[in-house]
Amino acid sequence: MRHFLTLRDFSKDEILEIIALAKKIKKRAKAGKFKPYLKDKVLGMIFEKSSTRTRVSFEVGIHQLGGAGIFLSTDDIQLGRGEPLRDTARVLSRMVDMVMIRTFGQERLEEFAKYSTVPLISGLSDMYHPMQILADYLTVCEYGKDKNLIVSYVGDGNNISHSWLMLASKLGFELRISTPKGYEVNAQVLQDARKFAQISGAKITIYENPKEAIKGANVVTTDTWVSMGQEAEKEKRIKDFEGFMVDDETMKLAREGVIFLHCLPAYRGYEVSESVFEAHANEIFDEAENRLHAQKAVMVWLDKQR
Amino acid sequence: MRHFLTLRDFSKDEILEIIALAKKIKKRAKAGKFKPYLKDKVLGMIFEKSSTRTRVSFEVGIHQLGGAGIFLSTDDIQLGRGEPLRDTARVLSRMVDMVMIRTFGQERLEEFAKYSTVPLISGLSDMYHPMQILADYLTVCEYGKDKNLIVSYVGDGNNISHSWLMLASKLGFELRISTPKGYEVNAQVLQDARKFAQISGAKITIYENPKEAIKGANVVTTDTWVSMGQEAEKEKRIKDFEGFMVDDETMKLAREGVIFLHCLPAYRGYEVSESVFEAHANEIFDEAENRLHAQKAVMVWLDKQR
Amino acid sequence: MRHFLTLRDFSKDEILEIIALAKKIKKRAKAGKFKPYLKDKVLGMIFEKSSTRTRVSFEVGIHQLGGAGIFLSTDDIQLGRGEPLRDTARVLSRMVDMVMIRTFGQERLEEFAKYSTVPLISGLSDMYHPMQILADYLTVCEYGKDKNLIVSYVGDGNNISHSWLMLASKLGFELRISTPKGYEVNAQVLQDARKFAQISGAKITIYENPKEAIKGANVVTTDTWVSMGQEAEKEKRIKDFEGFMVDDETMKLAREGVIFLHCLPAYRGYEVSESVFEAHANEIFDEAENRLHAQKAVMVWLDKQR
Repeated sequence: MRHFLTLRDFSKDEILEIIALAKKIKKRAKAGKFKPYLKDKVLGMIFEKSSTRTRVSFEVGIHQLGGAGIFLSTDDIQLGRGEPLRDTARVLSRMVDMVMIRTFGQERLEEFAKYSTVPLISGLSDMYHPMQILADYLTVCEYGKDKNLIVSYVGDGNNISHSWLMLASKLGFELRISTPKGYEVNAQVLQDARKFAQISGAKITIYENPKEAIKGANVVTTDTWVSMGQEAEKEKRIKDFEGFMVDDETMKLAREGVIFLHCLPAYRGYEVSESVFEAHANEIFDEAENRLHAQKAVMVWLDKQR
Repeated sequence: MRHFLTLRDFSKDEILEIIALAKKIKKRAKAGKFKPYLKDKVLGMIFEKSSTRTRVSFEVGIHQLGGAGIFLSTDDIQLGRGEPLRDTARVLSRMVDMVMIRTFGQERLEEFAKYSTVPLISGLSDMYHPMQILADYLTVCEYGKDKNLIVSYVGDGNNISHSWLMLASKLGFELRISTPKGYEVNAQVLQDARKFAQISGAKITIYENPKEAIKGANVVTTDTWVSMGQEAEKEKRIKDFEGFMVDDETMKLAREGVIFLHCLPAYRGYEVSESVFEAHANEIFDEAENRLHAQKAVMVWLDKQR
Repeated sequence: MRHFLTLRDFSKDEILEIIALAKKIKKRAKAGKFKPYLKDKVLGMIFEKSSTRTRVSFEVGIHQLGGAGIFLSTDDIQLGRGEPLRDTARVLSRMVDMVMIRTFGQERLEEFAKYSTVPLISGLSDMYHPMQILADYLTVCEYGKDKNLIVSYVGDGNNISHSWLMLASKLGFELRISTPKGYEVNAQVLQDARKFAQISGAKITIYENPKEAIKGANVVTTDTWVSMGQEAEKEKRIKDFEGFMVDDETMKLAREGVIFLHCLPAYRGYEVSESVFEAHANEIFDEAENRLHAQKAVMVWLDKQR
């Protein structure tokens, strides 16, 4: 049995196998065909943080696979009353066939996984967001950007950037990251990515200047500067991120035909200009839809490993 | 592709086609037969206001059609964090097959519809409640009151009365509305209804005196005087609506065999007396059940237009 | 049509029939076989108190039976706005095929049942928790403890102890209850149980000393000392329950091979020691899983009575 808590635990071949499965499942879905891979199965979905995309994509996904999803917010369940996570893990995994958790610390995922007798999927933690990055890579492939791929991530050194580090270092493409001072990526994650890169041939570079990072890239991406729970430091963050907005001027530095990705929600006038957002709306909403297909692939893949 | 935001957008023939479909679907359901018209389809349900009937009737309905519903309250999703509605519309319509929204302003429905690539259904707005009125009309037909129909709406000039105006003016029956001073129906809606009435032959009359309005009617209906969000002005409203309670005395003025409809929740001793409510409980709970069947018809009909 | 509000309303034969059905359904589920007993059916689930196990077990259960569950918290529905329970009962039972309610007073269940046209199941009240006790008894049977059964319940005289009283007095086994002064079981429930015991041959004894109660038992069970809504009196309760913790020392007094049951959530160091809990984790989490199977049996059984 396997869990999916971070791309760190997956080989290049496994990641590509999941992406290939996602392409197949998406193609069929677009033709109105839904194979009941997970008939009679139930996915438990625990949300310790609110969500549109994660919630809807998992719940629609499991339904399209012939199963059902149960949405559990911490208000609804006993976790909110201080039941130990290991008891919740042991109870839930007796009743459902797979669990998805959207939470804060990565260690909560690891604790749950330790006691769970069914596969656990990360629907985001403070450290990683592997489902988003699989959806992003599926989009990169669909736009034909996976050859000679150079991804530039400009902005906050957060879970999205960490997942890009894992993906690039496993698959072996070029990743450029530019973050403001004080918002660097996690040092341990970066060190691990560099280690994986030695095997895969990935080129991982940190830039001080976001414009330098974007030069010649064929995929540019960013994320909100103010994630959930950081609202109090909003003013400070906006000041600290000055010069990091992706706008028309910076996009001109990228390779011709560059695509722009954003995992949403997007705050126009902050991490991205209205003009760049709307010019690249096709890619962005394809990327959002790809959460659905990538996650169905992950669920089917995990079910096969049991 | 069509949306269902108000009866204003529908012709007499279309409305009658949907009612006929509702009758067919209900008859089959009563025999325990459920045709999977929307197999593998998912309905997204966004609630910006809480609800029993709308929530349950849509969620049961989509299940009886072979699909599944996803309940999204604004607490659960990013809309609550200020994501532009047009982004939510573009994301959701990539993942689900149909969307239902219960919201405040009609303009929110229109904004969502503009960006949605799947059919959108109004589950109530401040301006209209088209699903309720379809259920009401289905009930009117079941009780054989659609011939020589005279509907008297007594009470608040709200979304329910506006939807009756649209229905009557499209189908061509007689509608009498009596509201207290200061609680009149929307002037633009009334003007539009009078315009449609010229084509359909509907007779639309506004009465000062609720007793006058009820004389000879074969359908009497009302709605709560204090809708959600109006709790602060409750005392004032109750005073202003004096004389507008539907009680045994006023019901005696109606035609023999008159039915009484109420979309619920009902506040006995305010808009309706306990005695009238319980004497007409059969109609009222048939009406509630008809939300289920009318809405299944709307979903199937919209799916056919794609 | 039957409701399931308390074991008081069921005969020994009926209870054993439901347990036998639960065993059959569980055996099939373990083999990956799910018979769609309740195809196209919808279970409405009203939660006036939050829950993990009740929520998940009912929602997974109805799905495994081919139907669907609708989760309604009082925040989501009009009950929270003061609609009379009898109206909610009449509306809901027009739309769904079965209703489960987790609530406070038993009289709320009875009021709902009176107006409901579909079967109603108690998912816990202040007075009883029949679904839990069916799951417990299924576990007792699976561990082969139903022959010469002696159950010792040590702790709070609450809904769990009341349901054990009903089960023992109906089935005819030995039940020993030990509660601190001031936390005795309901006198009326005890009197009724003693009456039923005269027919079934059950032996029901109240002990002052928990150690005495446990001597020679082959099933020991307890429950939290501080249930939902009692947080304010937590300190007082902990003091009053001194000496009632089930620990290694007290467990030694029981029969060899004794099993320990706990309906969860468990508070280690209060009603049970960490050591006893983890030594008996197999039984406890089997018991939790059995909620799922016992409740499926109840739903199928009730559907057959219609």
